[in-house]
Amino acid sequence: MHPAPQLSERITRLRSSLVREILAAAQAPGMISFAGGLPSADAMPILHDSDTSHDWQSPVFQQYGQSEGEPLLRSRLAGWLAESGLTVSAEQTLVLSGSQQGIDLAAKLFVDPGTPMLCEAPTYLAALQAFQLFGAHCIGLPLTDEGIDTAHLAEMIETHKPRAIYVIPTFQNPSGHCYSAANRQAVAEVLDHYGLPLIEDEPYRELMYDAVDRTPICSLLKRAPWIYLGSFSKTLWPGWRVGFLAASNDLFPHLLRLKQAGDLHTNRPGQIRVANWLVSNNRNNDLAHLRSTYKHKRDAMNDALKNTFGHLADWETPAGGLFFWLQLRNAIDTRPLLKIALERGVAFMPGEAFYPASSTPKLGTMRLNFSHANAENMKKGLKMLAGIVEEHG
Amino acid sequence: MHPAPQLSERITRLRSSLVREILAAAQAPGMISFAGGLPSADAMPILHDSDTSHDWQSPVFQQYGQSEGEPLLRSRLAGWLAESGLTVSAEQTLVLSGSQQGIDLAAKLFVDPGTPMLCEAPTYLAALQAFQLFGAHCIGLPLTDEGIDTAHLAEMIETHKPRAIYVIPTFQNPSGHCYSAANRQAVAEVLDHYGLPLIEDEPYRELMYDAVDRTPICSLLKRAPWIYLGSFSKTLWPGWRVGFLAASNDLFPHLLRLKQAGDLHTNRPGQIRVANWLVSNNRNNDLAHLRSTYKHKRDAMNDALKNTFGHLADWETPAGGLFFWLQLRNAIDTRPLLKIALERGVAFMPGEAFYPASSTPKLGTMRLNFSHANAENMKKGLKMLAGIVEEHG
Repeated sequence: MHPAPQLSERITRLRSSLVREILAAAQAPGMISFAGGLPSADAMPILHDSDTSHDWQSPVFQQYGQSEGEPLLRSRLAGWLAESGLTVSAEQTLVLSGSQQGIDLAAKLFVDPGTPMLCEAPTYLAALQAFQLFGAHCIGLPLTDEGIDTAHLAEMIETHKPRAIYVIPTFQNPSGHCYSAANRQAVAEVLDHYGLPLIEDEPYRELMYDAVDRTPICSLLKRAPWIYLGSFSKTLWPGWRVGFLAASNDLFPHLLRLKQAGDLHTNRPGQIRVANWLVSNNRNNDLAHLRSTYKHKRDAMNDALKNTFGHLADWETPAGGLFFWLQLRNAIDTRPLLKIALERGVAFMPGEAFYPASSTPKLGTMRLNFSHANAENMKKGLKMLAGIVEEHG
Repeated sequence: MHPAPQLSERITRLRSSLVREILAAAQAPGMISFAGGLPSADAMPILHDSDTSHDWQSPVFQQYGQSEGEPLLRSRLAGWLAESGLTVSAEQTLVLSGSQQGIDLAAKLFVDPGTPMLCEAPTYLAALQAFQLFGAHCIGLPLTDEGIDTAHLAEMIETHKPRAIYVIPTFQNPSGHCYSAANRQAVAEVLDHYGLPLIEDEPYRELMYDAVDRTPICSLLKRAPWIYLGSFSKTLWPGWRVGFLAASNDLFPHLLRLKQAGDLHTNRPGQIRVANWLVSNNRNNDLAHLRSTYKHKRDAMNDALKNTFGHLADWETPAGGLFFWLQLRNAIDTRPLLKIALERGVAFMPGEAFYPASSTPKLGTMRLNFSHANAENMKKGLKMLAGIVEEHG
């Protein structure tokens, strides 16, 4: 036999993904899962007749397309972003094959082996994995009630000379935190002062149940380069794989070329369907339905948590997003509890898994999704989980 | 103002793409283009009613899916590959967002800065760009009438210690060459001897107009690791962005994780449409229609070439694919001719552009697509091109 083939150095950093394993286990028949972040099918827009009969089935849109994305979609994305407070031209938008691809492109843009990058601690696991795959040294900034501590941010920039910062300011994953208006402004000022590029990832921003400030930090920047990542996987249908980014003019041309080298362009029927929805009469009703369905689920979960975890944990009711973030009063490491939970038929995400390698994880944290389980399973699953915490706490 | 943001070292290798610029220029109104490789809309399968009304519109397939791809599609891909002579299990197949993504994944798998990689000279430009983006030193193997010279291949392996070899054995892009059966076997034996991983890229294999051997070299390997890249962009619709790879078991798990980190998974409606087509009653008729349409266009181009370039160039009639490869008798560099041609309203690809940086390009070569221009424009465009060659030769 031959020796094993010689692979790139980055493959040594391609660790088995805890998320993948948990999600695979969570799909076992009968499992009650609080682990994933799947949108709920009954909350999502139905495929309207006016959509299914539309021009996205035209042969025109089955040919090769532009790497930038469909001109029709790009101009509507610029309008969609303007509604959220971010003024960009259509030429600054790039359609992605899901916003995860934007993280891959940002990692390719900024990261060499050893490159310091700032992120929140805790943060989105698949972003950590993508940055670390390219060799990033991810430095975590603890979350505060307001967002991130800007004095600490400045200190970390001076100390580590990072190339960029990755944040999820609105209904943050996994914590559910939302940066305050003042903190958004303060963060923008620090980034402008140092000229540090911002990667702002906003997959959950439409899932708002209580009014909070959601001003994109990118829109507050005056000088620092920026990339804003947007998704339709939580508002329309994730299976279409249509996301987007907008970027400052100094970064955009590189991102476009990286997109072209990566997969030429995003599937066109999906792009046209999103473009149609953005200007459809149904759009605002669809969003209202989405918010009310999830708000109801969130409130049901909050009640169920009070009945099961009220004496065991503290949490904030998240103003948006898909997750509760629990802090157990007895701050045990929840990772060893996962195996027991899966054996008993209930899945959750240990909060400790969401911290970059250089951060000390906050123990006794759990991320619990509220969109997937039905009312009955929600109560049953939480009771089982609370029992496990009590036994092992 | 701040200094420019510090980007990764790979961005210095992200050159402006000649292809992108030519293709952009080729889309100008009134331009006669022999430059691109767009499939012809009148050759492609029509969207049958039985397809447009099918299960791919089910809400089930609008949710997040598996990174591996749809189980239904993967099992049918294994069957499709078996028909071509490559025996794989469904578990060895990975659905891609177009086969270009497979090149990105292969580059991530093998390439560190300075990694030697073997390829054909000339070869597919976007593959060169993807490997070079990650820092590959691409070493070109000249094409022979049979394929590649296996003694030279062995010598290059011993000299350069490459990590993998990338080839397009069937209706090669840009040359239209097809490796002989004996050469395929001989290449497989050399790769097995050295255990050198093979990346075999076969986007054109269904576009066969004259019978030739098309045995996948991957199917002849006994020990060497391999990745086989397949596309539906030339047989079904490129706008759907559904391609695939199959890989040996030692490489597959890494490729799957790289796919997950890159874009989570490929769009599901497109996957289901391809899966439906693979077992539809229309499939073989669609392929026969595709081949006869393109064969007719190829023959028309051959005739038009005889009338315009007969005294200026030599070429082989390609047995498949989408391109003629001309060797001018007066071997001038055709790159400076491109600007003149574009100004006069005709686009082509200078053959010299398809060589890796370390190879000396063969001068006087031109790649001419025969699927895009209609009969009248084909004659007119070739006459203009021949005129330019005569003036500047």
